[in-house]
Amino acid sequence: MAKEKRTAITPTREQDYPEWYQQVIKAAGLAENSPVRGCMVIKPWGYAVWENMQAVLDKMFKDTGHQNAYFPLFIPVSYLEKEAKHVEGFAKECAVVTHSRLELNAEGKLVPASPLEEPLIVRPTSETIIGEMYSRWVQSYRDLPILINQWANVVRWEMRTRLFLRTAEFLWQEGHTAHATQEEAVEETLKMLKVYEDFAQNYMAMPVICGQKTEGEKFPGAVDTYCIEAMMQDRKALQAGTSHFLGQNFAKASNIKFLSEAGNQEYAWTTSWGVSTRLVGGLVMTHADDDGLIIPPRLAPVHVVILPVLHNEAENAGVLAYCEALKKEISAQTFNGAPIRVEIDARDIRGGDKVWGWVKKGVPVRIEAGPRDIAANKVFAARRDTGEKFSADKNEFTASLPKLLQDMQDALYQKALACRTQNTKIIDSKEEFYEYFTPKNQDNPEIHGGFALTHFSGSAEVEETLKKDLKVTVRCIPLEGDKTPGVCPFDGKPSKKRVIFGKSY
Amino acid sequence: MAKEKRTAITPTREQDYPEWYQQVIKAAGLAENSPVRGCMVIKPWGYAVWENMQAVLDKMFKDTGHQNAYFPLFIPVSYLEKEAKHVEGFAKECAVVTHSRLELNAEGKLVPASPLEEPLIVRPTSETIIGEMYSRWVQSYRDLPILINQWANVVRWEMRTRLFLRTAEFLWQEGHTAHATQEEAVEETLKMLKVYEDFAQNYMAMPVICGQKTEGEKFPGAVDTYCIEAMMQDRKALQAGTSHFLGQNFAKASNIKFLSEAGNQEYAWTTSWGVSTRLVGGLVMTHADDDGLIIPPRLAPVHVVILPVLHNEAENAGVLAYCEALKKEISAQTFNGAPIRVEIDARDIRGGDKVWGWVKKGVPVRIEAGPRDIAANKVFAARRDTGEKFSADKNEFTASLPKLLQDMQDALYQKALACRTQNTKIIDSKEEFYEYFTPKNQDNPEIHGGFALTHFSGSAEVEETLKKDLKVTVRCIPLEGDKTPGVCPFDGKPSKKRVIFGKSY
Repeated sequence: MAKEKRTAITPTREQDYPEWYQQVIKAAGLAENSPVRGCMVIKPWGYAVWENMQAVLDKMFKDTGHQNAYFPLFIPVSYLEKEAKHVEGFAKECAVVTHSRLELNAEGKLVPASPLEEPLIVRPTSETIIGEMYSRWVQSYRDLPILINQWANVVRWEMRTRLFLRTAEFLWQEGHTAHATQEEAVEETLKMLKVYEDFAQNYMAMPVICGQKTEGEKFPGAVDTYCIEAMMQDRKALQAGTSHFLGQNFAKASNIKFLSEAGNQEYAWTTSWGVSTRLVGGLVMTHADDDGLIIPPRLAPVHVVILPVLHNEAENAGVLAYCEALKKEISAQTFNGAPIRVEIDARDIRGGDKVWGWVKKGVPVRIEAGPRDIAANKVFAARRDTGEKFSADKNEFTASLPKLLQDMQDALYQKALACRTQNTKIIDSKEEFYEYFTPKNQDNPEIHGGFALTHFSGSAEVEETLKKDLKVTVRCIPLEGDKTPGVCPFDGKPSKKRVIFGKSY
Repeated sequence: MAKEKRTAITPTREQDYPEWYQQVIKAAGLAENSPVRGCMVIKPWGYAVWENMQAVLDKMFKDTGHQNAYFPLFIPVSYLEKEAKHVEGFAKECAVVTHSRLELNAEGKLVPASPLEEPLIVRPTSETIIGEMYSRWVQSYRDLPILINQWANVVRWEMRTRLFLRTAEFLWQEGHTAHATQEEAVEETLKMLKVYEDFAQNYMAMPVICGQKTEGEKFPGAVDTYCIEAMMQDRKALQAGTSHFLGQNFAKASNIKFLSEAGNQEYAWTTSWGVSTRLVGGLVMTHADDDGLIIPPRLAPVHVVILPVLHNEAENAGVLAYCEALKKEISAQTFNGAPIRVEIDARDIRGGDKVWGWVKKGVPVRIEAGPRDIAANKVFAARRDTGEKFSADKNEFTASLPKLLQDMQDALYQKALACRTQNTKIIDSKEEFYEYFTPKNQDNPEIHGGFALTHFSGSAEVEETLKKDLKVTVRCIPLEGDKTPGVCPFDGKPSKKRVIFGKSY
């Protein structure tokens, strides 16, 4: 009998991708489901990853001239109604607050009391309430642009939830800007899309395609929605961030008017853009393997964990002292502009459990140090991404750590890019398209072709048919790449260029 | 006629303290009321102060071994019911979510649809939902302690709101810890109280008294509530932070049990502790004057603002270059462990408006630089706290800035401490007590004596009478200071020591 490779996560990606994803999250201690339907608990390790994401993004937003602010959690129903498309998009799944008190009824049960005059919804997104405030703040062109970002929780009453990827409550940032001209607003929309691309590629090590959404897939109320789309290891697409050019739709709905330099009353041009805790899910599905999470070094809460080998009472104090000194030397090194984050794990638990615990948490580098290493002034190191293990001179190793971490960061990106390239195909016939998106293995129906680069006429009918037949949608109309026109293989009509088709989360 | 001193804020503190407070906030651009009842919008300048508070506190929490995590916004009503005192305290004013959808009714109006099986409340505090998660995470004494903090928004349906001090929604942090022993939990409770004291005094420059709450004033469900209490400029007390020893009350309610080292099933001992955006209100009321906000340098989003004097087209480029060079030199200096935060305001607006704008925002140091300063290599500087203005050699001034900022930080603390000392009185008779708390000026009924250090028997009846008669409550039983026993002047019974009485926000 062939011996199967033992993996830390059961099932493997190959065996059952969705379940593998849940198990990776559980094993890493990233998050878990709460007793409140659809709401997750983000555990310390998961929250630390999110905090690192926040810190990088927050600096990027500030460097591009934005300020943070905070707007109310609740939105009056009448505000939602102001933009017709918007209400269509969000009224179907929202948490509605109808009372402001609980009281005991005759049976001694707490029941809602003091009904509100007007129900409130918990914000699913804040265009309408922020628009109302902007209408108060903007009188003249001198008050523009307004460049504000908010870090907040939002709620969308999703029926089918999955940790990080789709939850009723999630954490995000939402940028909301108002401008005097259309040009400036479009420029802002694309600038923030590029910020997201930079973040995804250079911090998450997750290759993304920048593109535009079709009419059917755009944000409710937007003129144009731009997005970054990434391919996960099951070849499905993850919409990882969106940036919306809202035209004057929300300015009209919220009455954001200003006196222009020429002396005319004009409506402002607005944008909004956001990324969420969904990115943590994207990070997992881009990099984790059958042994658990792998965190790109630039976002890792801990870069290096030192595991003292403590077998002998007489030697333990010396080992710990060696590890403490090593920790100090390592944290004197910088990576990505800050000291390397290093921890010693001296817990009294089985060595194997300890090592595997850190493997499953995805810490980039593990170091073991015991009496023999001390004698030779060495360390025994392991790289989480490749699994490579090696013994090295302590000082040389410490000095090489910044480069090692950057190499891992780059290697993770290249690996993900290769995976996407390998699973992206130019397809020009309907038959090949249907074949491509049909699962080959009935035991694992989630695995299919990947991304198809195919011409598309823009027909909503075609989109609907493909969604119904294959659960495939246009992920985006790429901004870069081949711009040769052609013919849509589904309705024979002209196509401006190929678009990205795929199944999506 | 005597000429009145012109102030930037109308009315002055003397004329109408509550309205002065609103006007300071408005003039500084800290926050404003939103159209959603009781919910405020925290504007960029106010949010920047809150971010600085968060950064300091977050580091203090992590340095004391805590990790951040995130728990659901919603709490099932049945969870609230688990702790009897807790439900009493929070059921009376909470946002109740009863539906998960809106639909159009026959009249074309959006109305709540899809009622929930069990209503949810928006968290007013998270003991119950976090307790539920801890009960799942804790099996053995090895799983303890759990030391977690959450940064979150919470909602309490307050009837009378005031920006920052009391709002329906506010931002806060809530620490929730679970321990194997009572001693450890009590130690944690007091440790975090000391963290808050450190923060209030050394960062907010706000003197506080550490003390314990009476039975009547403690947190619903706590065994002991500790607090930091500060005196505002109207001599009222502000409860600025609380730390609760919850005993086993919530562990029993949530079934947080563990197998002890001795092999027994025991309930854990828990604590919770929090501070909120209320601190921003406390900062305003401690330091602002009749010209507007004064921000202690350690929390100021901008330490120094440079105002180029641009009067002459031919000289402007030179002035701007001088200011840019100055900015660079200043930001090369460090204050409180980070580069000094400096901005140039070159907006084309009236010089007076510009200067007063920064005065009202409370930036510690303003610098004006024009052609004459350049010629002499000088700057013209103004200190926000004292109003002092002086001309100085540019290089000497730049080098002295870290000390100047620290001097201002210290001076603000000393000034606030002097105000509290001056308005705190040892009182031993009921007559003097009533006299002390009776406003002297009917035009300004808010102004009264201040804090009274008076003996107290602990009687709930006495507390109730004083509250009814004078709106005065026991702010805290101080942990430090005079511990001589005495007699309660209200009921003649023995008193262990003097307590702090005051009116409060």
